[in-house]
Parts: sequence; structure tokens; C-alpha cells
Amino acid sequence: MKINRPTLIIDEKKARRNIAFMAEKAKKSNLIFRPHFKTHQSATVAQWFRDEGVNHCAVSSLAMAHYFYQYGWNDIHIAFPYNILEHQGINELAKNMKLKVSIESQKALNHLKSHIKNPIQYMIKTDVGYGRTGIDASNWKSILSLANQGNSICQFSGLMAHAGHTYNARGLHDIEKTHNRSLQKLENLIERFADPPFVSYGDTPSCSVSENFKLISEVRCGNFVYYDLTQTKIGSCTLDEIAVAMACPIVAEHYDRNEVVIYGGAIHFSKDFVMTPHKNFGQIVIFTQNGWEILEGVYLKKISQEHGIIHLPRNIDKNKFSIGHIIGILPVHSCLTADLMMGQQTLSGLPIEKMIRI
Amino acid sequence: MKINRPTLIIDEKKARRNIAFMAEKAKKSNLIFRPHFKTHQSATVAQWFRDEGVNHCAVSSLAMAHYFYQYGWNDIHIAFPYNILEHQGINELAKNMKLKVSIESQKALNHLKSHIKNPIQYMIKTDVGYGRTGIDASNWKSILSLANQGNSICQFSGLMAHAGHTYNARGLHDIEKTHNRSLQKLENLIERFADPPFVSYGDTPSCSVSENFKLISEVRCGNFVYYDLTQTKIGSCTLDEIAVAMACPIVAEHYDRNEVVIYGGAIHFSKDFVMTPHKNFGQIVIFTQNGWEILEGVYLKKISQEHGIIHLPRNIDKNKFSIGHIIGILPVHSCLTADLMMGQQTLSGLPIEKMIRI
Repeated sequence: MKINRPTLIIDEKKARRNIAFMAEKAKKSNLIFRPHFKTHQSATVAQWFRDEGVNHCAVSSLAMAHYFYQYGWNDIHIAFPYNILEHQGINELAKNMKLKVSIESQKALNHLKSHIKNPIQYMIKTDVGYGRTGIDASNWKSILSLANQGNSICQFSGLMAHAGHTYNARGLHDIEKTHNRSLQKLENLIERFADPPFVSYGDTPSCSVSENFKLISEVRCGNFVYYDLTQTKIGSCTLDEIAVAMACPIVAEHYDRNEVVIYGGAIHFSKDFVMTPHKNFGQIVIFTQNGWEILEGVYLKKISQEHGIIHLPRNIDKNKFSIGHIIGILPVHSCLTADLMMGQQTLSGLPIEKMIRI
Repeated sequence: MKINRPTLIIDEKKARRNIAFMAEKAKKSNLIFRPHFKTHQSATVAQWFRDEGVNHCAVSSLAMAHYFYQYGWNDIHIAFPYNILEHQGINELAKNMKLKVSIESQKALNHLKSHIKNPIQYMIKTDVGYGRTGIDASNWKSILSLANQGNSICQFSGLMAHAGHTYNARGLHDIEKTHNRSLQKLENLIERFADPPFVSYGDTPSCSVSENFKLISEVRCGNFVYYDLTQTKIGSCTLDEIAVAMACPIVAEHYDRNEVVIYGGAIHFSKDFVMTPHKNFGQIVIFTQNGWEILEGVYLKKISQEHGIIHLPRNIDKNKFSIGHIIGILPVHSCLTADLMMGQQTLSGLPIEKMIRI
């Protein structure tokens, strides 16, 4: 591996396996599969989804919709509250493709209807318990009212929900509990509709572990393509399913305090951590011929802007941790790490095309 | 202000005032002023330093040294442990300019001496209590030994230290205490030298509040150019001295729970927070004709990838927080926020040139 500074390594095989797993699961449950591309933000990885027959996606900004449009994606849902200040760009894009936006208030819908001139679809963001955005699912009057205001340009195309509170779950049972409570809220809401609306749903924990997608029409999860330490902690995946590792050079040895320092910090990983039970900013792995191997008890204990401090267990062979060596780190939150990293490649050295920050 | 997505706004007047303050302070104390440019990573802001007579800087990576070299900076210290894997790039750059690297082990120095062919200077990183990198200041034997191994190509040019543990301080007295303990360690070390070496030093808290720079030759602080909430919490600056604010559109109103949602999240701010006493990811301000005004009690309470949730006090005028409005947020850690943001401009709309991520 010819790497001399922090570089995000993607195990294409694992990522493709994660994609195939979710595509297969969606198919079995008669669900449309609209993966969220904010995790990878990559035209290369998007192609791996195409190879599984996927031809629509969700993104989290107009800029990201633009990016994927340039790579031939022409059915995109901006799964983020409609930003009225970007209406011109949205209108432009809607001219050329099937574009969906997310609406969660009368005010936003009024704006959409008076400013967008090209056919566009709107989904109503419904809060099923996460409490971030969306109209509370119990407020069926408001939701029904918004649903009934579609016209030939601004077409109502269904409900969308994100049970982001599954991220607080620990273990399969806990995920299912949160997921089922969310579905119950949706069910109560849907009963109010004369015809059951199209429903887009999907957080990675629920989509990974549940088999219950009653009343759901489409899954919209994203993180599963790479997974990460957070998802293993929740119970969505195993360590072995994580498809990304940061490759970082060791730049300083401090064996006396069981530490080495890497070139790799907050600007590469972001600052999310898990408690295991100590603060853990990443799980250390060693790169092998065709992948990587987990090193039990070795973890990223502290990060500042470019520095990372690795904890070494007392009895480990320190020779593997000399300055100039490259070690791997499974990230805590792959969406943020992938967003930060411009230098990305597969295990075999294939460059990964990535959206440029704006 | 014609902004429709997260944009970093720099108050040029305040930034220039912060620069002038530190330049003046260095001059009064007979110190060389070598500001750390990792905070802004901007050729535009670097020019503001030039306007104060500054013509050398510190950076935290070879890539950053390259960037500033392209803009005419030819005396640069890479204040990060010498990454032996980048020796070719370092050697290249040393051909054209006065380059300093940071050494903290015999192994690294051996590598430097056997791989670098163009004249280069090395500084010995000395740990004065922070415990991140560097040889413990009490280990004078190792430090003296490394200092005595310079030759005509690899020239020893002094000691460097970073009292990063001042970031744990709260209040002026506390900063001074940590600072003075660090200086004492340096003093004990310097006594071992026949001739007192050149000493580069400087964290923003110490440099902002102390007047004691005994035995120090050069200050190398960086964050002070923008400051941030962390620095106000430590006691290095007032809220009024913070020179950057993120401008973000409001995209959802949730007055019922005293919240609005902005387009602006972890990929814009990074995930650092301060406790005030609640988790606080940023202090809200309202942009005025020539700057911004602090809004007491309004803060960024939660962030995910692109979403930010703003807490509104119950009695505040909600009309100021409608969808489509732009509000400002003083960041918790300006180095990380500035690193993340490609879209940057001054209050008057002048674009800020910024190093592109690699």
C-alpha cells in the first residue's frame, strides 16, 4: 500500500456485499430501494449500487443532487427540509429530472407552489419519534391537509419518516422496539388516509435487523454501505461488515505510556466517539494482503486537529507500531469520515471519485 | 447578505484586530511572531498577517506548507512530527525555501539525515506537560543529544513546545498557572544547554493572556486569529473578539418545542461542543449592517450530518426565526469549522481563498 498520509480505504467487496444484502432484503419485502447517498457521496460507489439494479437515490442537499445528476442519476429525493433560499437551483434541476423534495409545513409548501415552475414531487416529512424534523405523526389533520394540496406541478408523492432514535438503541430487541413503535405511529396516521399513501422510511439500524416493513413502500437508509463502530455498538452490524478503514502513518512512538501518535485527527475522522467503556475514536486494524485484521484492545483514544493518539495494550508487539508504518482505523461514524476525506481508494488502489466540498 | 446555504463569514476587522494585537504583543516582548496557519488555511487571511509585517508561519502538514509556498511564503515550520513517509515532498520543498521540521526521536532524526538532501532545519519537540508528542522536557540527555547532531544540511534550530493543556484551564489565573509550570520545565531544560537555544512556543490561551515569555524566542499560536467559544470558556478572549460566524438558513420551525432547524450540521461545524451548562454546539447571533449581535440564551443544541437544532428561549420573538431567514452561529472550535468550510467570505462579501482538501 503506497500511502503516505491519511487515506480512506474502501473494501469494495464488503461494500458491495452490504449493498447486495440490502437490495436483496428490499426486494424480498417488495420495497423500493432508494439508498441515501450522503454516506459515500461518491459516483464510484453509486455505480456499485447501479450494478445491483438501483436507479434512484436520496441525498441531503441540493449540491449533492447536482453532483449525482451529473453522473446520470435522474430520480433523486432531497431528503432534507426544502430550503426556500435554494428554490432557483431546485427549479433548475427539476427541469431535467425526477426530483422529490421534503415538506414539513404549510409555509414551505406555499413557497414551493409559488416558486417552482417545473414538475416536482413533494413528500411530507412525518416525525415518528426522533424529534428532529417533521410534523408529529399524530397531527394527521395537518398532514392530510398538506397531502391534499398537490397540483400538476407540485405533486404529492407520499409520506417520509426517519426513525433516527434507533441510534439510541442497544441490541436487536431494542432496535425492533423503537422500530415497531415508529411503525405503529405511521399506521395510526395512514388509517386517516382514504387510500394508503406511498411511505418512504429507513434508518440503517431498522433496515439492517428488522423484517417488519408493514405499510412501508420504500427504504431510504444510507450508512449500511460502509457501516461503522456506532452501528456495531447499536447492533446493526458486526465489526467484520465495516467496509471502510482510514489508513494513517505512525509519526511518533511513546511506548513508555503505551501510545503511538498517527497523522490523522479531527479533520480526517470528525469528533464522534463511542464509549467502550473508555472514549474510543476508532478501532485499530492492521492491513493484510486482501483486507484488514482487527487488533483487539488497540484504539484511537484522543484526537486533535491532525494528531491521533493510539492506545496500545501493554503486552502487544510494539514492532508493529513503528514510525513510518501505516495502520488502519475503523471509524466511529463513517458518514462524517467519508465526507471529510478527499483521498479515497479501494484496497486494490482504485481511486474513489468523491464529491468536492463547496 | 445573499447566502442560501452554510457559509463561513469572517469579520475582517475583528480578525485584523486580533492579528494586530498578537503582532504588537510579540514585538513588545521581543518575540518572533510565527503564527500557526492551520486555523485559517487561507491565502487571503495570510495576507492580513503580511500587512502586519509577518513573513513566516507554522503549518501542520506538508500539504499546507505547499499551499502557502504557492502564495509566496518561503519560511515555514511544519509543526507536526516529521512524517518519514513524506520525505520526498519535504526534500522537494526544502530546495526552494527555508523549511523547518519537527523531530522528537533519534529514529526520526536518523531518517531525516539520511533522506533529506537540501538544507533543512529541525526543531526538537519538547513535551512541557501536554502529553501528546515530544520528548519529556526532563529528559535533557536525549534532547541535548539530538540537538548536537546537526550538520550543514540538517541544522538544529532550537526547541519547540506546545502547552496544549492550557485548554483545560478555566480563567486567567488557571491559564497562567499552567503556562508558568510549562515555562519552568523549559527553564530547567535550557539550563542544561551551554548556550540557550532558540525556543518556539505558543498556545493561544497563554499567548493571549500572559505577559511572561521568559526564555521564549518565538510565539507560534494560531487560533487567536478567529478565536471561538472554547477560547471564551477558557478565558483567552471575549465573545466580542470572535471573528467568525457561520451563516445558516433556517429550514424548519418547531416553535412548539422552542426549536428551529437550520441547514448546518456536523459536516459544517464539526462535533466539538462546550457545556454552558447544557451541550452547546454554537452561540447564535443575528447579522446586522456591519457585523453581528449576540442573542443571549439562543444556542445550537444538537447537530447531525446537515441538520442543526437551535434552542430558542420561550419569550423570544419567534418572527426573527422564520424559515428562509439566515442566522449566524459562533463556532465552538473555529479551526475545525474553518477547515470544513469551503464557502467563506467577509462580512462585505469578499471571497476568502481557502486551501482545498486533499
